[in-house]
Amino acid sequence: MSKKNAFYAQSGGVTSVINASACGVIQACREHSDRIGTVYAGRNGIIGALTEELIDTSLESDADIAALMNTPSGAFGSCRFKLKSLDENRREYERLIEVFRAHDIGYFFYNGGGDSADTCYKVSQLSETMGFPVQAVHIPKTVDNDLPITDNCPGFGSVAKYIAVSALEASFDVASMAKTSTKVFILEVMGRHAGWIAAAGGLISDYDIPVLVLFPEVDFDHDRFVDAVRARVEEFGYCTVVVSEGARNADGRFLAEQGTRDAFGHAQLGGVAPVVANMIKDALGYKFHWAVADYLQRAARHIASKTDVEQAYAVGRSGVEMALAGKNAIMPTIERVSDNPYSWQIGSTDLAGVANVEKTMPLDFISEDGFGITQACRDYLYPLIQGEAYPDYDERGMPRYVVLKNQLIERKLGDFEV
Amino acid sequence: MSKKNAFYAQSGGVTSVINASACGVIQACREHSDRIGTVYAGRNGIIGALTEELIDTSLESDADIAALMNTPSGAFGSCRFKLKSLDENRREYERLIEVFRAHDIGYFFYNGGGDSADTCYKVSQLSETMGFPVQAVHIPKTVDNDLPITDNCPGFGSVAKYIAVSALEASFDVASMAKTSTKVFILEVMGRHAGWIAAAGGLISDYDIPVLVLFPEVDFDHDRFVDAVRARVEEFGYCTVVVSEGARNADGRFLAEQGTRDAFGHAQLGGVAPVVANMIKDALGYKFHWAVADYLQRAARHIASKTDVEQAYAVGRSGVEMALAGKNAIMPTIERVSDNPYSWQIGSTDLAGVANVEKTMPLDFISEDGFGITQACRDYLYPLIQGEAYPDYDERGMPRYVVLKNQLIERKLGDFEV
Repeated sequence: MSKKNAFYAQSGGVTSVINASACGVIQACREHSDRIGTVYAGRNGIIGALTEELIDTSLESDADIAALMNTPSGAFGSCRFKLKSLDENRREYERLIEVFRAHDIGYFFYNGGGDSADTCYKVSQLSETMGFPVQAVHIPKTVDNDLPITDNCPGFGSVAKYIAVSALEASFDVASMAKTSTKVFILEVMGRHAGWIAAAGGLISDYDIPVLVLFPEVDFDHDRFVDAVRARVEEFGYCTVVVSEGARNADGRFLAEQGTRDAFGHAQLGGVAPVVANMIKDALGYKFHWAVADYLQRAARHIASKTDVEQAYAVGRSGVEMALAGKNAIMPTIERVSDNPYSWQIGSTDLAGVANVEKTMPLDFISEDGFGITQACRDYLYPLIQGEAYPDYDERGMPRYVVLKNQLIERKLGDFEV
Repeated sequence: MSKKNAFYAQSGGVTSVINASACGVIQACREHSDRIGTVYAGRNGIIGALTEELIDTSLESDADIAALMNTPSGAFGSCRFKLKSLDENRREYERLIEVFRAHDIGYFFYNGGGDSADTCYKVSQLSETMGFPVQAVHIPKTVDNDLPITDNCPGFGSVAKYIAVSALEASFDVASMAKTSTKVFILEVMGRHAGWIAAAGGLISDYDIPVLVLFPEVDFDHDRFVDAVRARVEEFGYCTVVVSEGARNADGRFLAEQGTRDAFGHAQLGGVAPVVANMIKDALGYKFHWAVADYLQRAARHIASKTDVEQAYAVGRSGVEMALAGKNAIMPTIERVSDNPYSWQIGSTDLAGVANVEKTMPLDFISEDGFGITQACRDYLYPLIQGEAYPDYDERGMPRYVVLKNQLIERKLGDFEV
């Protein structure tokens, strides 16, 4: 078999460690330059493949590629763009294969969540039937931790650490102020359909902090919630609420729905914290403060989990090794070997079983009252936030994050409208 | 002169380094145990003195006091409680002196902002006339950086670092996503009347990031702002907005006023980010995300500035040394010796000139268009965020923050209603 080039793209919402996966992919490819040619990266994700905007990563120095380990965001650009089903839009899949053929791309590394797993799987199937077989490997990434089969997803551990540490720090703050001022602090966190990130906020109950977690998995009940807040404030003087953006009523309506939808057709959320704050004010009259972490949580490379950084890197490397071993339509997974001390290894799974399956919190991870987490959940979460992996800082006091050259190669094909 | 006890209290909104000042005060007092007896801390600030709820800090181990260096929040509790003027409420001042007399307190260390400087000054004056002279030292603290005379305030540097780093990270994120998704990211920061914290967000323009800062010092002009956002998005593909909670229209109205007031009579703010987001959506239709950092920014000990931690500690220690040197109605200040390399020393100022003076941003720190910062501002800010001072983390991945015993001493006086 002649030497083929590789294509790598980042998909969906970025994380503080997705570039560590990119680093793993590119470094592993460079180490196997006898078998893999140039690694092209899609400018702004899969859209870059469709429009033939391919970044030549061979122009980036080894030092800059290594610096991806410590740089949040998507260094090549990402996109929210879901390829439609083959029936609906065969044209896009065929264009992908056409671009891969034009640039002799035999390896497709797609770094994303559930939607990109689906795209990756379809590419693997279609390329075969189109007579230009591409080995498609999905590199898992999502802050939401909602991919099936893998024990956890790279990206999640760092958000979990950020939320646990931030909720702890803010709770210390409100405890200081509660006598005359703020009695309830509300922190809104990400997690559209799964409460994994919110659960990380629940870890602070280990510090005797009265914390209530509002999960998407538990129907919100106004009166029960208000009673729970009152009980905490009466006992402890204050209360912390960690609310998932996906918290919803029994009828399925989000507590705060902006009414817009993203390109994947998912409801676009934000602003549940002020909704909860007003509920507390109206029902109890307590003074409150609220925070919405939004992008800060998933970009916070400065407080990334070392475990998470290492796993993100490992799934990138392993994806390349699997491709070199001839695998196709596969995803590296993280397998937990033991909780305490935590150990893990890389496994793998067929992509067919990953696409479009959402893993929510197991019910035995949520406490009986629905407002907290169980010991099983703690045992699951703590290993994922273990260790610190600080970026370097310059003499001014700012982190050294790399910006790549991102130089595009010359196009060979005509225009394509996406 | 016989050995007197000391009283220490934390006032107003807490910071990630106010406990480092407490550490400085208590350690310095312990080193001078020949001249200073027990250090009592007010439970929940000055209220603890009025109600005679005094914490015996001598029961805390040296290790726990040292751990205050790395622990955010107010370890003894703080309060938002401004003593009225002497004419309006002489009763409270007299009670303070009565409590000081009952517990033989000759040193009063009050750790706070402008309002507490005022209280501290009044105590120094009244104690003299009441025949129980107390040496009153104000230890500066405020995230808002709005105290006069001192070059900067402990507490500010760490918030500035948090905001600069977070805005950088989130801007990397939105730059990754802008092709198909979020084009404008809005970060709301603290700073009721002064734009110092917002200015820290402006530092990220050094990374060629298109960032617009909305200062309280600059009248907000809707059309100019919308035009500026459009211009950035058209040129760079995205735009970051850092908006102060105190941003206001030409008529003085806050962009987002909740309509409530805190115990000091200040308007209670929050939620300007969604207001700005909706403006952008209505005028330009861009997809946006917004974050409200709220307490997270002032509690974020995990990303504190080393400079700030050291200065917070130093003003605590120096306050004790000044008291021992016989000073009264005084505040340790931070004096800048040089910008680059940065060096500083401790100075001092009479409290009379500090109370109730608010230092806003000098106009030459704000760029001509009103949306950014000047080189003079950069030269001022960078030194304050220099260095990292990470807390220790335990094996679970959580920071080691100390919770003190906070044991109250037996009361000697009758009840007092506050």
